[in-house]
Amino acid sequence: MKLEKPRNVPEKLLLGPGPTPVESRVLRALSEPTLGHLDKNFVAIMDETRDLLRYVFQTKNELTVAMSGTGSAGMETACVNMIERGDKVIICTHGVFGTRMVDVAERCGAEVVTVSAPMGKPIDPEDVAKAIKNNPDAKVVGIVHAETSTGVLQPLDDIAKATHEAGMFVLVDAVTSLGGMEVPVDRLGLDMVYSGTQKCLACPPGLAPVTAGPRAVERIKNRKQKVQSWYLDLTMIMRYWGQERFYHHTAPVNMVYGLNEALKIIAEEGLENRWQRHRRNAEALWDGLEALGVKLLVDKEYRLPSLTSIVVPEGVDEAAVRKDLMSEYAIEIGSGLGELKGKILRVGLMGSGSNKENIVFFLAAFGNVLRKQGFAADIGGALEAVERKLS
Amino acid sequence: MKLEKPRNVPEKLLLGPGPTPVESRVLRALSEPTLGHLDKNFVAIMDETRDLLRYVFQTKNELTVAMSGTGSAGMETACVNMIERGDKVIICTHGVFGTRMVDVAERCGAEVVTVSAPMGKPIDPEDVAKAIKNNPDAKVVGIVHAETSTGVLQPLDDIAKATHEAGMFVLVDAVTSLGGMEVPVDRLGLDMVYSGTQKCLACPPGLAPVTAGPRAVERIKNRKQKVQSWYLDLTMIMRYWGQERFYHHTAPVNMVYGLNEALKIIAEEGLENRWQRHRRNAEALWDGLEALGVKLLVDKEYRLPSLTSIVVPEGVDEAAVRKDLMSEYAIEIGSGLGELKGKILRVGLMGSGSNKENIVFFLAAFGNVLRKQGFAADIGGALEAVERKLS
Repeated sequence: MKLEKPRNVPEKLLLGPGPTPVESRVLRALSEPTLGHLDKNFVAIMDETRDLLRYVFQTKNELTVAMSGTGSAGMETACVNMIERGDKVIICTHGVFGTRMVDVAERCGAEVVTVSAPMGKPIDPEDVAKAIKNNPDAKVVGIVHAETSTGVLQPLDDIAKATHEAGMFVLVDAVTSLGGMEVPVDRLGLDMVYSGTQKCLACPPGLAPVTAGPRAVERIKNRKQKVQSWYLDLTMIMRYWGQERFYHHTAPVNMVYGLNEALKIIAEEGLENRWQRHRRNAEALWDGLEALGVKLLVDKEYRLPSLTSIVVPEGVDEAAVRKDLMSEYAIEIGSGLGELKGKILRVGLMGSGSNKENIVFFLAAFGNVLRKQGFAADIGGALEAVERKLS
Repeated sequence: MKLEKPRNVPEKLLLGPGPTPVESRVLRALSEPTLGHLDKNFVAIMDETRDLLRYVFQTKNELTVAMSGTGSAGMETACVNMIERGDKVIICTHGVFGTRMVDVAERCGAEVVTVSAPMGKPIDPEDVAKAIKNNPDAKVVGIVHAETSTGVLQPLDDIAKATHEAGMFVLVDAVTSLGGMEVPVDRLGLDMVYSGTQKCLACPPGLAPVTAGPRAVERIKNRKQKVQSWYLDLTMIMRYWGQERFYHHTAPVNMVYGLNEALKIIAEEGLENRWQRHRRNAEALWDGLEALGVKLLVDKEYRLPSLTSIVVPEGVDEAAVRKDLMSEYAIEIGSGLGELKGKILRVGLMGSGSNKENIVFFLAAFGNVLRKQGFAADIGGALEAVERKLS
């Protein structure tokens, strides 16, 4: 086989829904020598990584691991372990990832009751309470904390309370919130929460952090049926991440180095500082975008600090916007998914990518690209708005 | 959170069942800048990686991908896609990984008929033929090509022929063979074959190469039930790896860079040259071990070139052998798994790790460690045997 071309990996500014910018410290960690998955030095790195994951999840949960797959494998881990064939479950859908959770749960043999909200709105806790009341035999309530497809932040307090009062388990998708805002695992007693590495944790994609509370662990240990996925079976994986070091599968060793370094960066910054930085920068972006003249999909109260959805203005070709941003500025942003395809653009400010330089650069570039299409973007006004917020 | 210790990742010589030594070119590739999973530069790398995977699999199969998980996720991919609930399947067990395949298949709702051989022996094709004859309603025959737990190389020709004559599909685990010896995908029309990156492909663990022939693709497309795993559903994954670039999940971008580089190293060496190198070095190791005075578990005809199983001599403490090799020489080898726990030691010569220096270093170190335990290892004789074979 002839191979002449070198691999072409240019630097691009990742301001989409993920992957997000990865610091060179994390990239270097990926290239440290591969160790055996039962090597004592590697096991020490795993232990530290688990402690760091507990810190970002703000939990004391013993069962806290990084699953060997991407964020979607985290969703599947939650469903296959928490659901048995024939179980009734309530799943909230207010975007693509809630809808995906329905699909995953159905493949686990669940009877699914859905509670929906329009795209761009959060789920109404009253609707969940009603579904719980109408389905007292349901076992699990699944909900997305940070809907990556819409940019909606879902308040969880009332839903977690109602779920627990009914004796059910709450299962939470924190893919786009973990590391960028509070994920109140212990405060609300969330039973199973999963995330991905490539969002606010600012690590390349490839691992799915998962944490499970004591009630969830009890439920998993008392299952009548085996977990339908061998690969994601927490009853075995917890024995590898625990003291027993039971061999299950060969861990993705170098990815764990990367996650370890990314989590150290978070610990150095301090989790609360990081949440505040994400919030402050997101507000600056929102002010800038509104001054630029575009509308945001989500009401301010429910906006994610990590991901902002811009309504594509009338007459603007969103695919051309993304193409121009990439070809002229090497900036990647995201398109709409599902029902919102063609209707929104998604801008992520996650991890180290959430900073003033990126906001200014993006607004100037976005404004220019919009002007090319005849939209009268007020770039000066946008940049002034950012200065007002961040100076 | 206080973090004072640096991450401790020493260089070790990985001569176990995997992960195996990774060249610095591959480690450097892992640390290239993260791109978006739909970025045109990344998509070009995926396309090239797919072509390179077809080369190592020796196949023209359109459906050839790297699944976003480790080798065990490859096994699960094969089972969840090829099996529907209620299907009868025949699975051959001559080690831990065949036994694991039974477990995975049962979790897919299969009725499993097993065909077994003692640990250290290959499956008798006659036994498979009988099982096929007695179970004409079976859909799939699953078998491990290279049993990583025993070091047995399983001849596939007769079994593939009998399976196809009965109109069934053959599903092959090539985790420890791919890249180290011929995996005759097209020559035998193997319907679905999976592997892992951390064996003879000499890449860190984290991806599972999978290839499926046209008959398997047809079967998957005509399934009556959805694939029970959303994450591993090839009906969707093939649309991401194909021209459509349908978004499924965020690919583990940096791991794909690493696999791309590891496969380029293979293409540069030439696949046939690589097979011959693995074979020649394995024979030198076998001669050296026999001259040293230890016995091998597997008859020469059925030994894997990539993995050699040594019978632990009477009176030798195998755990102490492994511990001393690690602490005194920084060499990692593997212990026995399952029934063979405590009874064998497993030595891998895979990828760039399969070379004369490693054989000489290992034999000298192993001989010294055995002598510490009172075993009269003939180190001089072992090294002479290696010289005779490799000079």
